[in-house]
Amino acid sequence: MADTWSIGAHAFTSRLLVGTGKYPDFPTMQRALAASGAEVVTVAVRRLDLSKKGEESLLAWIPKGMKLLPNTAACFTAEEAIRTARLGRELEMGDLVKLEVIGDRRTLFPDVEGLIQAAKVLVKEGFTVLPYTNDDPVTAKKLEDAGCAAVMPLGAPIGSGLGLRNPYNLRIIMETVQVPVLVDAGVGTASDAALAMELGAVAVLMNTAIAEAKDPVLMAEAMRAGVEGGRKAFLAGRIPMKLHAAASSPMSGLIGS
Amino acid sequence: MADTWSIGAHAFTSRLLVGTGKYPDFPTMQRALAASGAEVVTVAVRRLDLSKKGEESLLAWIPKGMKLLPNTAACFTAEEAIRTARLGRELEMGDLVKLEVIGDRRTLFPDVEGLIQAAKVLVKEGFTVLPYTNDDPVTAKKLEDAGCAAVMPLGAPIGSGLGLRNPYNLRIIMETVQVPVLVDAGVGTASDAALAMELGAVAVLMNTAIAEAKDPVLMAEAMRAGVEGGRKAFLAGRIPMKLHAAASSPMSGLIGS
Amino acid sequence: MADTWSIGAHAFTSRLLVGTGKYPDFPTMQRALAASGAEVVTVAVRRLDLSKKGEESLLAWIPKGMKLLPNTAACFTAEEAIRTARLGRELEMGDLVKLEVIGDRRTLFPDVEGLIQAAKVLVKEGFTVLPYTNDDPVTAKKLEDAGCAAVMPLGAPIGSGLGLRNPYNLRIIMETVQVPVLVDAGVGTASDAALAMELGAVAVLMNTAIAEAKDPVLMAEAMRAGVEGGRKAFLAGRIPMKLHAAASSPMSGLIGS
Amino acid sequence: MADTWSIGAHAFTSRLLVGTGKYPDFPTMQRALAASGAEVVTVAVRRLDLSKKGEESLLAWIPKGMKLLPNTAACFTAEEAIRTARLGRELEMGDLVKLEVIGDRRTLFPDVEGLIQAAKVLVKEGFTVLPYTNDDPVTAKKLEDAGCAAVMPLGAPIGSGLGLRNPYNLRIIMETVQVPVLVDAGVGTASDAALAMELGAVAVLMNTAIAEAKDPVLMAEAMRAGVEGGRKAFLAGRIPMKLHAAASSPMSGLIGS
Repeated sequence: MADTWSIGAHAFTSRLLVGTGKYPDFPTMQRALAASGAEVVTVAVRRLDLSKKGEESLLAWIPKGMKLLPNTAACFTAEEAIRTARLGRELEMGDLVKLEVIGDRRTLFPDVEGLIQAAKVLVKEGFTVLPYTNDDPVTAKKLEDAGCAAVMPLGAPIGSGLGLRNPYNLRIIMETVQVPVLVDAGVGTASDAALAMELGAVAVLMNTAIAEAKDPVLMAEAMRAGVEGGRKAFLAGRIPMKLHAAASSPMSGLIGS
Repeated sequence: MADTWSIGAHAFTSRLLVGTGKYPDFPTMQRALAASGAEVVTVAVRRLDLSKKGEESLLAWIPKGMKLLPNTAACFTAEEAIRTARLGRELEMGDLVKLEVIGDRRTLFPDVEGLIQAAKVLVKEGFTVLPYTNDDPVTAKKLEDAGCAAVMPLGAPIGSGLGLRNPYNLRIIMETVQVPVLVDAGVGTASDAALAMELGAVAVLMNTAIAEAKDPVLMAEAMRAGVEGGRKAFLAGRIPMKLHAAASSPMSGLIGS
Repeated sequence: MADTWSIGAHAFTSRLLVGTGKYPDFPTMQRALAASGAEVVTVAVRRLDLSKKGEESLLAWIPKGMKLLPNTAACFTAEEAIRTARLGRELEMGDLVKLEVIGDRRTLFPDVEGLIQAAKVLVKEGFTVLPYTNDDPVTAKKLEDAGCAAVMPLGAPIGSGLGLRNPYNLRIIMETVQVPVLVDAGVGTASDAALAMELGAVAVLMNTAIAEAKDPVLMAEAMRAGVEGGRKAFLAGRIPMKLHAAASSPMSGLIGS
Repeated sequence: MADTWSIGAHAFTSRLLVGTGKYPDFPTMQRALAASGAEVVTVAVRRLDLSKKGEESLLAWIPKGMKLLPNTAACFTAEEAIRTARLGRELEMGDLVKLEVIGDRRTLFPDVEGLIQAAKVLVKEGFTVLPYTNDDPVTAKKLEDAGCAAVMPLGAPIGSGLGLRNPYNLRIIMETVQVPVLVDAGVGTASDAALAMELGAVAVLMNTAIAEAKDPVLMAEAMRAGVEGGRKAFLAGRIPMKLHAAASSPMSGLIGS
């Protein structure tokens, strides 16, 4: 009676998905990936240097058994993202794709028009599409309607470490769509990851928070524990919030802070 | 090279301390205590029914090997608390005491005048005193000066589940005293526990959040993971917060939300 | 040397814009509008009952001298919104239009795809377009690029009274676009309005917070003062935040709470 | 039917009380005091230079008609504070005293033990005592029981500009005591002042936020408007918070953020 979840045909136990960018070196990345307990690891197709072989290749450092999730990072139009997703498939990286269509180079917010457009095309081509999106419930619904296998709203801008800046919108998204909701981007520390799970997220995806921590391997362990704690707290059913224990009625609506 | 901490002569690995009140029944309590991984369990001396023997006694249900931390819950004056602490020692509950002098029946906020007074007396009598206090840095310093082995500020009112309502004061307390700072009271869910550890607390003490969760045993596991995640994140060194990844300067001062 | 602002050819002194929906009756609305000091009042073209004449018509109760801002509330597609804007012009409601393309009946979040599409058409037809949008900086930039005279991101869902749920995104929008940024929707009380102005908003638009307050006329006065206070505080240059007065370095990044 | 409040025998209309420290110069202070609309101005007895006469004296620059509220700033024991209060009376500064007993030089948190002790003595000597205290409800109740005419909990450390760090405790204090609750210290900007009033504070006292703003006179106007807006919003009865307008039940317990 394990607590599993699935995307398309793939079932997972770990609810932490991790990235491969920004690590100081491949050996550190490898140890952090292993320490995270993650079963899914995302790789930027556009940043792969296909001329590298053996130990010089990033792919060689990904622990065996981890499911690859190619992503379309650094794509700024639907067309670029579509081409990049196809390239990943040609490279035999599998049928899953984390779809990114970036709308702003500084903040890395998604371009939701391009995102929806690319999602429609890739779904038709048989991809299992996981879109990185903002926290807009209307866009989330459109992505679900387009056939995406999940939606992945940001908690805060990529690399910001700000945590969940608008848990209200995340909650509305969870009420709005039927597909799994994964929080992608913004997590800075373990309590952020726990909070995302307590809100009801199916899983959390992160990269910078681990890769750029002072000790990435220990932070990977921290995030693993944070996700586990948050998930179990969600399932265990927390006590209501009250102004104090003798208050006659519980508070409602206080989210995360 | 384990990550241990100590109070007086006692060294611990687990950074989660748990209570024994409010459980639906003793067997559930026993399983939750075990699941929490806690090494220290606090018991209200005044609520012990010494007429109960064997399986009818709360003490019989505390897992072997857990360190008892008698507390003076339900004491409203320094005198009551002092008498109650002495009674615990007579009952061979050991030299540690979690000192509570309650100032308000509704909110269970401490009476810091009575608390400081009782602490001074008990320290002189050889107790290792752990006071439950509010989040006032001046009171924390006085308790340290009185010889307390730690200070245990509340995160929020007992049983409120509100989490850490004023992380700023907790941070100032940590800057102000040299003794260990444990967050006691207020935690509602795993992310709260993680956040307390990320702020730099040495440990977290809780009761209601586990005992009154829908599934206390699973919540005990959640809190164990949350504390572990928060502690490791604290040690691992989190990324700075920025408005977005390309922002030129990190934010500072954003605590917990 | 008054502190004025402008949209298109129109210059204003008041930075509070108000709506006309949800009032208990027209006389109360009229008094609240007057008390607000607003110079701009928005009216839902689709909700006008053109069969009503004289005192039965909403328009008759709008104080003389207020600038009408017709809006496309209750439009769920770009086409509906475009038709409704044109209808407003035919009714001689002027060249300004508050453009709404609603994407979800429950939450009233905008449909940003439809919004951008409608904005492009209406700008070409000579309208001065003020779009109600979400807090996505990429969408805000597209609306500016489409020729909108301002952008009006929501602080929180329409009618929610939640205040500014994500001041971080609002700040990023203000850094991103050159046109005036007005906060539209979400304000619940005077401190929310003040906070919006302190963040740097050019103005605030609200309806429910005044119309459904227990005393709408007094709340209109409250909002007028809140907007004035926030604007003046923004101009006056607030003190930096510090953990305490003797802290060696100011905090940065703490926004609004 | 003006909205007035009173302390002891004194009735006031303005709900903003202001200090006299930290201004760049006396003329600026004078203009800011006037712009604030305050009727009460607090002066540190210990910082008065009694050798200064005429325009060199701070007192000469206080606008006519403002009620003086001598304070015991820079007193670190009950004895010092008592002596200083008596000195103020000898200097014919009146019967009111803002009682400060500071417990920590860095953070300027009060020493509540000394504060309660000094309050008891001064009340017996006929002073109308307004104590600067922390946000502990038990201490607030003791100060009321000691005969204080009001309690003045801090919103955040003096000079920090952090706003209201724990509105929950402020609310509990307002539920606990019958005397007026004034928020003293911590306000940084107009929305903070508005929020304090919306919580139900009778008035707000501030100094640094005005004196050290880039433009103190304009900030004084901002604070005046913020306090007015918050007070009127409190009286007008705000709309409930909901996740969105169509949510079936209002939220409760969300305070201030």
